[in-house]
Amino acid sequence: MEAMRAVVFDGALRYVADYPRPEVRPGWARIGVQQAGICKTDLEIMKGYLGFKGVLGHEFVGIVESCADADWIGRRVAGEINAACGRCDWCLQGLGRHCPERTTLGIGGLDGCMADFCVLPTANLCVVDPAIPDERAILVEPLSAACEILEQLPLHGQERVVVLGDGRLGILCAWALATVTADVTLVGHHPDKLAIARWRGIETAVEAGEVAPGADIVVEATGSGRGMAQAMTLCRPRGVIVLKSTVALQGEINLAPIVINELTVVGSRCGRFSDGLAMMRDFPDMPLERLVTDRYPLAQAAEAFNRAQSGMALKVLLDVVNR
Amino acid sequence: MEAMRAVVFDGALRYVADYPRPEVRPGWARIGVQQAGICKTDLEIMKGYLGFKGVLGHEFVGIVESCADADWIGRRVAGEINAACGRCDWCLQGLGRHCPERTTLGIGGLDGCMADFCVLPTANLCVVDPAIPDERAILVEPLSAACEILEQLPLHGQERVVVLGDGRLGILCAWALATVTADVTLVGHHPDKLAIARWRGIETAVEAGEVAPGADIVVEATGSGRGMAQAMTLCRPRGVIVLKSTVALQGEINLAPIVINELTVVGSRCGRFSDGLAMMRDFPDMPLERLVTDRYPLAQAAEAFNRAQSGMALKVLLDVVNR
Repeated sequence: MEAMRAVVFDGALRYVADYPRPEVRPGWARIGVQQAGICKTDLEIMKGYLGFKGVLGHEFVGIVESCADADWIGRRVAGEINAACGRCDWCLQGLGRHCPERTTLGIGGLDGCMADFCVLPTANLCVVDPAIPDERAILVEPLSAACEILEQLPLHGQERVVVLGDGRLGILCAWALATVTADVTLVGHHPDKLAIARWRGIETAVEAGEVAPGADIVVEATGSGRGMAQAMTLCRPRGVIVLKSTVALQGEINLAPIVINELTVVGSRCGRFSDGLAMMRDFPDMPLERLVTDRYPLAQAAEAFNRAQSGMALKVLLDVVNR
Repeated sequence: MEAMRAVVFDGALRYVADYPRPEVRPGWARIGVQQAGICKTDLEIMKGYLGFKGVLGHEFVGIVESCADADWIGRRVAGEINAACGRCDWCLQGLGRHCPERTTLGIGGLDGCMADFCVLPTANLCVVDPAIPDERAILVEPLSAACEILEQLPLHGQERVVVLGDGRLGILCAWALATVTADVTLVGHHPDKLAIARWRGIETAVEAGEVAPGADIVVEATGSGRGMAQAMTLCRPRGVIVLKSTVALQGEINLAPIVINELTVVGSRCGRFSDGLAMMRDFPDMPLERLVTDRYPLAQAAEAFNRAQSGMALKVLLDVVNR
């Protein structure tokens, strides 16, 4: 058995040098990981979320190292995280990311990418255009999740949009929405993050109370318990609330305003990487690099996770291959 | 001051014979009430919901008795319950039922219809076709609320629909949906109510667990705390949950499945009476009369409310004018 370095969660976070290298299955590829990103979901897993144990990580850029289809070998890729069964009704409809049999990279049933190698179905891989540097490409997963809003909502470009939450996902949602509508306001408590978020005339506010109610669309990306209540206050009757964070919805909430104001609440999860990569290509001035605030070598994963947990960082990267 | 009989809530339910008769305002009409229905909202008001005090009741059939526009006098009418300001942006868009300045018959700021007379803007009144008897017409408000689902959701007729709740509203939602899609299942705990609900091949079940998951649309009309959790279990990924009852949403609920399964939750409140009356006309075999399980004279309002609160009745009527 060949070994590799990996960041493992088994109740505690551990960096190990002797984790078994994953085997390539038929139709899958093994990727030599170059960079891995720490995502909020990783921090949730460390609190017991979804009960996952194994190699962490689902955001990466890497080079295909082994694959039965030789065309893939040597390609620089990012990879969609849900490994679908490919056979069920959902998969046959092209909605494999809802496949009930799916495993999910570093989240459910499949070792993740904070390691020298990870494996994914080739159907999940997207070749990254050479014009897109690693520091932008590593954000394809959250940017695609932001793009998912544009797929789910038919926008005509005149909407007034409010995004709640100045974390990575909130900022990326604001940027994705700003590509199609001019009136976007981002609400967050961190002036430094709001400064990073300014692009294409995005307005910012440090308190939801500063924002005029009556928004057509409110995106809840705070990950906190107060976001949903604020969203209901800011949204106009018959408006749309997009839920991007699952955490916000646990606990005591009076959702009667949804019925009284006939709101539509749209749950929005992952997006297609092809959409995220296309947005990176079409909007080269979208300041994605600003979001990469911290970088650590793989062996310093513990420090990197501490930094990510501090709430001070936006995107913390692990350099798996030395720069 | 002329007096009238009225059923008043002022912390307790009281039948009084000397309530002041409401004045006709410009653009409004005074209606001699013939029948009034007891609605779940009336029962909620008696628990303090919305803090309303005054004459109860918002479901009625009556005859216009006084109006500046003589064309209205003598007409048999039902009336939409939200009295909009007629001047704000919402009103000018034809969405007066979301007008922030609105008053609501027997619910907010406007005395209701459990009385000899009530007043409403003439814009709210709908003439009831003589072919529709009072016992059907009295259900126009909840039937219109059920029709609102058809306005909000674009149905193609192949959807599998599950309606949770075998109260009046749940049954009416099932009936309204059965006019456009063949696969409708109604879930409720009362076999006698489920028997009443059977029409156009509607399937019934006494437990949500008996129903196959994967429904395209789930309508939450239980008015209980468990309905939302059941709806999330029964709805397919990317499906739609329609919320018809506000009560269901108070309290501790984990709504993370909305995001994980990318569900759309649509709050759905009142509908246009013209839609409900049109459905009554177009589907004369819709067995609306079955829902009127109990009738009491106005003076026996206390008994009528007790019956409505028992959970045994479907629709309890108050006969304001002797039959």
